[in-house]
Amino acid sequence: MVQVLLAGICGTDLHLLRGYADFRGIPGHEFVGLVEGRRVVAEINCPCRTCARCRAGLANHCAERRVLGIRGKHGVFAQKVAIPRENLHDLPRNVSDEQAVFVEPLAAAFRIFEQVETTGRSLVLGDGKLGLLVAQLLPQVTILSRRPSKQSLLQKLGLRWVANAQELDSDSFDLVVECSGAPALLDLALELVRPLGTVILKSSWLQPCPLQASRLMVKEIRLLGSRCGPFPPAIEALATGRVQVEPLIDRTFALHDGLEALERAATPGVLKVLLQPG
Amino acid sequence: MVQVLLAGICGTDLHLLRGYADFRGIPGHEFVGLVEGRRVVAEINCPCRTCARCRAGLANHCAERRVLGIRGKHGVFAQKVAIPRENLHDLPRNVSDEQAVFVEPLAAAFRIFEQVETTGRSLVLGDGKLGLLVAQLLPQVTILSRRPSKQSLLQKLGLRWVANAQELDSDSFDLVVECSGAPALLDLALELVRPLGTVILKSSWLQPCPLQASRLMVKEIRLLGSRCGPFPPAIEALATGRVQVEPLIDRTFALHDGLEALERAATPGVLKVLLQPG
Repeated sequence: MVQVLLAGICGTDLHLLRGYADFRGIPGHEFVGLVEGRRVVAEINCPCRTCARCRAGLANHCAERRVLGIRGKHGVFAQKVAIPRENLHDLPRNVSDEQAVFVEPLAAAFRIFEQVETTGRSLVLGDGKLGLLVAQLLPQVTILSRRPSKQSLLQKLGLRWVANAQELDSDSFDLVVECSGAPALLDLALELVRPLGTVILKSSWLQPCPLQASRLMVKEIRLLGSRCGPFPPAIEALATGRVQVEPLIDRTFALHDGLEALERAATPGVLKVLLQPG
Repeated sequence: MVQVLLAGICGTDLHLLRGYADFRGIPGHEFVGLVEGRRVVAEINCPCRTCARCRAGLANHCAERRVLGIRGKHGVFAQKVAIPRENLHDLPRNVSDEQAVFVEPLAAAFRIFEQVETTGRSLVLGDGKLGLLVAQLLPQVTILSRRPSKQSLLQKLGLRWVANAQELDSDSFDLVVECSGAPALLDLALELVRPLGTVILKSSWLQPCPLQASRLMVKEIRLLGSRCGPFPPAIEALATGRVQVEPLIDRTFALHDGLEALERAATPGVLKVLLQPG
């Protein structure tokens, strides 16, 4: 039983409220907590640990898994939350609570490195919370950011950005990571990736998205789903300062102002909203 | 300048007539011909052979390429057709003209083996011309065929089939090859493939297709476009009889009855329609 110190609102939480994944229960899966004097973060998948997939090291795809605040298990927008001991990771002292809330989404960004080669030219579509984490990890990366309000932040993070997709050449990126969940950006991804290149889908989507299937076929594109990732490199990237997350924090709300916090998080252009139990 | 002996009508030809790829010209890209006393088949991509992609061995993705009967180059529904000498492959005597027409689509089926591991359980969706070629190549394969009229053919080809998708388990196939171009079958592919599995798109699609993007993301599916493939293994598979194609032939029309032949080819359930110049 972990005491929640601070939690973060994710785009998926907002989708859950609109019916995504048919979830009923307490949402929330990004957090830092305290248990038995230890400051911890937690992996969100709770697999059965006995089925063939679990035994094959594919526990994140266990058919019986519960997922913290997403599937069959109450989440962290609460004072306390029950978490299997195996899911916990201790935090080093030099990672603040505010940073620690980003371990889970940053781990999801690190998942990309388990799936594909990232040595070529990369493009990130979506300048939201996830896009700004992914872009900080990739080498030779450009991020598409159409909001003028984001430019000082992008500068602070040292990211190369373009404000207009027309500045980008068709067929020119080895890897495009779609972090927005916007159908028009999936089209754009298929246009900008090179033939035989890779497009990664990292967002959750509320609706089916139109796919230019013939373009995918003719260019022999690889479209790859990407979900949860490894916690240790995420913790290390925060501890060393390789990835900056404080500039992504919008505001912290008390947990009892949660509805207001969710509204704030759903406002276009707003980045990470945090929740603090009283 | 190759004399066309026999040509085949492909699903893509039917799409071209409805506006696919904005093609204007003589269609047709599957054929066997005669040149300088040699019986030949021909690869359909005519790359520039000088650009960076061509020099990197990716000539099939040359941005300047013309494609026989599909893009910037007249095709084979004609008495004669001009083909670059480099595209020609000689045929062994024990491959008949009727068989030879299948070299190009069979090469496209062999492309799968250049792209993915095929050692696990495979499913082919679509019991048309392409699906029946792909299914003959894959080990441990099942084909979904909802037309009772196809069952004797499937038996003859030695294929294991199911008539109803409900007989198949969700999350159970390592590889699903979508050969129909039907949006509902792309959904089905995402359901039936296992987590971390591969879905290959081999068809051309006239319209954007709705994609269950969240399912792709959560299951971390790899969706892979697949186009043209290697001719030598296709010629060999026909020469040795490993792949049977005669049972896939519906009828042969004289070239001057081409419109009737195209109508016949567009009839649901009809397999390969051939065209013979007079």
